[in-house]
Amino acid sequence: MVAEFIFVGTELLLGNIVNTNGAFLAEKCAGLGLSCYFQTVVGDNEGRLSETLERAMDRSDVVILSGGLGPTEDDLTKETAAKVCGRKLTMHEPSREMLKHFFERRGMELTENNWKQAMMPEGAIVLDNPNGTAPGLIIETEKSKVILLPGPPNELCPMFEANVAPYLADLTSQVICSRTVKICGVGESKAETVVKDLIDAQTNPTLATYAKTGEVHIRVTASAENSEKAERLIDPLVRELKDRFGRAVYTTEDETDLETAVVRLLADAGLTLACAESCTGGLLSGRIINVPGVSEVYKAGFVTYANEAKMSQLGVSKDTLDRYGAVSAETAEEMAAGAARAAGTDAALSVTGIAGPDGGTAEKPAGLVYIGCRVRENVTVRKYRFSGSRRKVRESAVAAALTLLRECILEAVEI
Amino acid sequence: MVAEFIFVGTELLLGNIVNTNGAFLAEKCAGLGLSCYFQTVVGDNEGRLSETLERAMDRSDVVILSGGLGPTEDDLTKETAAKVCGRKLTMHEPSREMLKHFFERRGMELTENNWKQAMMPEGAIVLDNPNGTAPGLIIETEKSKVILLPGPPNELCPMFEANVAPYLADLTSQVICSRTVKICGVGESKAETVVKDLIDAQTNPTLATYAKTGEVHIRVTASAENSEKAERLIDPLVRELKDRFGRAVYTTEDETDLETAVVRLLADAGLTLACAESCTGGLLSGRIINVPGVSEVYKAGFVTYANEAKMSQLGVSKDTLDRYGAVSAETAEEMAAGAARAAGTDAALSVTGIAGPDGGTAEKPAGLVYIGCRVRENVTVRKYRFSGSRRKVRESAVAAALTLLRECILEAVEI
Repeated sequence: MVAEFIFVGTELLLGNIVNTNGAFLAEKCAGLGLSCYFQTVVGDNEGRLSETLERAMDRSDVVILSGGLGPTEDDLTKETAAKVCGRKLTMHEPSREMLKHFFERRGMELTENNWKQAMMPEGAIVLDNPNGTAPGLIIETEKSKVILLPGPPNELCPMFEANVAPYLADLTSQVICSRTVKICGVGESKAETVVKDLIDAQTNPTLATYAKTGEVHIRVTASAENSEKAERLIDPLVRELKDRFGRAVYTTEDETDLETAVVRLLADAGLTLACAESCTGGLLSGRIINVPGVSEVYKAGFVTYANEAKMSQLGVSKDTLDRYGAVSAETAEEMAAGAARAAGTDAALSVTGIAGPDGGTAEKPAGLVYIGCRVRENVTVRKYRFSGSRRKVRESAVAAALTLLRECILEAVEI
Repeated sequence: MVAEFIFVGTELLLGNIVNTNGAFLAEKCAGLGLSCYFQTVVGDNEGRLSETLERAMDRSDVVILSGGLGPTEDDLTKETAAKVCGRKLTMHEPSREMLKHFFERRGMELTENNWKQAMMPEGAIVLDNPNGTAPGLIIETEKSKVILLPGPPNELCPMFEANVAPYLADLTSQVICSRTVKICGVGESKAETVVKDLIDAQTNPTLATYAKTGEVHIRVTASAENSEKAERLIDPLVRELKDRFGRAVYTTEDETDLETAVVRLLADAGLTLACAESCTGGLLSGRIINVPGVSEVYKAGFVTYANEAKMSQLGVSKDTLDRYGAVSAETAEEMAAGAARAAGTDAALSVTGIAGPDGGTAEKPAGLVYIGCRVRENVTVRKYRFSGSRRKVRESAVAAALTLLRECILEAVEI
């Protein structure tokens, strides 16, 4: 089954916003086993939208449109889609009621334009929007299923998960299940080499690799007549991937990210954590603290960008800084030790490096980063050489620090 | 003049990456005064790419393609574009030499596939790529100018700025100049109300507003026969915007962001800074430290997520935490004072709040954030109520903290 996306909005054509819905819908539909060959961005213009929708309906089984469902005069996706599909708009009473309550709860007044949002194409399936005022719509025509979703990602994503994904799964009569094996500390090309034979041999389940900063995700997708059978197809392949990548696999749960896995590992091992950061300047702590409920394990962070701060907050010795420099294995080690001592934690991570673009030398080039990791009495310091912009170097360093901490905890727990 | 974009790559259709080139090219072309009505994403497939390119050439004066210029067999944008434009591919000696040097410098071996990258459509303009191996191309046909750019943003963006923007500016025979007035601390709808009459009256220069987290950017664009005349058209409008928004305007330079403006202001005022963060957990320091050369003003950061850390690192009193709670104006004030004291700085910022989604109560809901700002002896604490996800609340808090610091410095300097 072939799906196609149309993103409606002048703000996309002007570059006011980045189209994150594109990657979201593409990844989800690929996960559902749909083939996607085209995505189009078009403005809030009836003629061009009609033309684009007609062409999409000619060549695809499912057409998903996002954006242009709001209350203003510019918003004409619903009206245009109804016309192209040959449906009249009529008042949809449940939507009218919902809209009324939505505004009443917020003490806001409804304008004539708002009522427009309760008009629906005849025979369409109306999808609840708990996060906004514009409901979604499914119009089933002989040619294709036309699905209209609101543009804001915080409305589109939950609506897709709750209503559209099950609808599309039903359409294919097959159930599609997928699981993601998430790997850290292994480069993308290395990971691809490791799974090349599996990818070449794939039919059902299929395998796809996705590179993230410092991580590789491998999605295993199977289709079968029910989810139990699909899961049974997935199981051996996930086991095989775990065998091949070993400890580098940090989770097989979609909703778990690297920082969550690391925080969980710390909690399970009964360890508390402190961070000392120089070039990453707080991004490492910032990422760890994005995990809800992190306060059990994360105690304190020190952003010691200046050498004085490294000395006064962490007790790094002047001698070490003078002899080896701030970007050195010795300084990284003392930073980790100092953070653990100052915060009274069992574990500590330290990062010191040259994020660039300036500040590098032949001996210590931009991108050189030392990461120190202390778990109880054991200290590991590792040297990294990252490439890319200042931002990219810093993000890579954060991912590497989380990966190193994970490794050190696993080793400490084993011993 | 009408421009249209085609993004080529199966990785976009699978959702492996977010298409940031779309917003970049759209914003740049809008700034050059080009109208854009369509963007299409298509895979590395000759038939579908040909079809898409032919349609684009029928309806647009300029067609920009990105992606699919690499050395692998999947990459067929150049070959397909040459065929659609009726051009043969021939070896381009300068590119061949460049490719040779590129690989020699890196001590890498060239494969047969790499040489493919030096084959160019006859008569095409070849654009240097200092950041990668695939040059860009401009093929001038009777119908339209077809411009091929590499897919990676770190190659595409500099190539566009250096080669394509001047080329497009020449085409229009008019020079297009633009300046961006960047505003912080004013909401998007408020900003739009303030400039509504200017937007309604716009012809040349034109005005466009862009909402960012905690900021609004207003781009003023003028076209004229030379840049001097265009700048003369822009000047009065920029002055008018500065009058209307006053101090909220933090820069009119494209390359200056809020953290850079704040760091510059600190340096000019001879102030040093420390940060104490709870719910933002290091993101505020992380953003400030992204400014190159920040070490003159930024001294230290404290990520005091736990109450013990607030007490031990910053000297927040137990009594304050017990009586008012960690999320309170009183705690924010003591955090800022403690950070300035511990780091020995003139200025300090503190952030404490409930990022959510959990942890909120009726009295202190998720999204409630207190920000403290100390500049010498003056302390300002402000209460905010942000909405959105945990990530959004934290990003909004960081932007608000930078805005508050800027305000407080401006006031201190005036006094």
